[in-house]
Amino acid sequence: MTEKGKLWGVGTGPGDPELMTLKAVRALSEAHVVAFFCKKGSTGNGRAIVAAHIRPGTVELPLVYPVTVEKHRKSDDYGTEISAFFDRSAEEIAVHLEAGRTVAVLSEGDPLFYGSYMHLHLRLAPRFEAEVAAGVTAMSGCWSAAGLPLVQGDDILSVLPGTLDEDLLAERLSGTDGAVIMKVGRNLPKIRRALERAGKLAGALYVERGTMANAAMMPLAERGPEPAPYFSIVLVPGWRTRPQARAEAAE
Amino acid sequence: MTEKGKLWGVGTGPGDPELMTLKAVRALSEAHVVAFFCKKGSTGNGRAIVAAHIRPGTVELPLVYPVTVEKHRKSDDYGTEISAFFDRSAEEIAVHLEAGRTVAVLSEGDPLFYGSYMHLHLRLAPRFEAEVAAGVTAMSGCWSAAGLPLVQGDDILSVLPGTLDEDLLAERLSGTDGAVIMKVGRNLPKIRRALERAGKLAGALYVERGTMANAAMMPLAERGPEPAPYFSIVLVPGWRTRPQARAEAAE
Repeated sequence: MTEKGKLWGVGTGPGDPELMTLKAVRALSEAHVVAFFCKKGSTGNGRAIVAAHIRPGTVELPLVYPVTVEKHRKSDDYGTEISAFFDRSAEEIAVHLEAGRTVAVLSEGDPLFYGSYMHLHLRLAPRFEAEVAAGVTAMSGCWSAAGLPLVQGDDILSVLPGTLDEDLLAERLSGTDGAVIMKVGRNLPKIRRALERAGKLAGALYVERGTMANAAMMPLAERGPEPAPYFSIVLVPGWRTRPQARAEAAE
Repeated sequence: MTEKGKLWGVGTGPGDPELMTLKAVRALSEAHVVAFFCKKGSTGNGRAIVAAHIRPGTVELPLVYPVTVEKHRKSDDYGTEISAFFDRSAEEIAVHLEAGRTVAVLSEGDPLFYGSYMHLHLRLAPRFEAEVAAGVTAMSGCWSAAGLPLVQGDDILSVLPGTLDEDLLAERLSGTDGAVIMKVGRNLPKIRRALERAGKLAGALYVERGTMANAAMMPLAERGPEPAPYFSIVLVPGWRTRPQARAEAAE
């Protein structure tokens, strides 16, 4: 009987290949198969980030999202279709694992922080040996590139999707110290209004293409009203409103 | 005139030396001086994590916290003393930078996510070239070790200090999907009550010494009432309460 292979969830980090971990590099050196989520016609960012570390002869397994933009994310159809897609992807990977092949699934940022990998992990970890190589998140990559600390000491940090409605967004922004707002895109004007209502527009920083070579950042208050790319984010520091004398050691 | 040295804020990751990034390794290979925060009589976790990557001949600069446990964190004395300590530490580093030496300041986890490095960055980045090597946070290390995804799709994630009072903690837990509760320690009984009031105790996971070799984790509901170590954390997944059909691709 063949010994089963191992499943790796590999965080690629936010974009800069140097922000891969040593563990991610090792996982790729052990993998017989490298799997990655992508859209039709593209191999995706994760694959591009780790390209230099994929050994010649490694089997590549693209997991192509079936979802078309015409379907609304909250619709029943969408839910059923995406769930079937994760079932199918997990079974494709299971075939390799059953055959004794180690499979590394790439995940941009950190595998268990908002990515698709979690859906494979939940399906496969009960049946196979599985290890998650934690990664640097997109938000860490962004605030590091900006040199902007968001939270210190006993601060609350909230990670908020820009898709929330304006009232809820304003309320959550009022009730936090630092915040990261994701999925900005067409929600930008609403996000700006919510920040204004929460009294936090002044310190907010708009970041586009985070840790890519062509990153762009500027105070949100100075940005024009044109729609932002979907994966741009807004960073809201909590500490600017505090007197320096309250600065605290984190430990 | 000597060219000035460069300041690196280096994220060491959460504890496992393999969770260092390639960039952190390079920063250490370029550094003439490695600085790290520590308590008197200890060289600290950050120094231990990166030990294998410090070149022989590198100058080590321990930055020893002056604060005694007798002083209350919120007191004016504490604030003044810790602020003077960061001023002094920045000046010690500035002497090396002025002399053209590259200085890497170690920071457990991610340098700008709750650590002391930010206080040096704010003081030195206006005067010297500075780069932050983002790192894997302690919370990513913990949920990866546990194989527990906290948030997906349009979920809200809140990072909450266990030092908040019970009412506020219960309210913030009610208003979020996933949560990470830090600084657990003696706050554990209060955190448990707040989770119960928010209806989120059942899914909560208690994690001690995160990504260390002697890590321990268990459902919070099953843990005894004895005080926890200060750096233990509680992970609260948002997705368990959702029907699987609402699973969404992250992108």
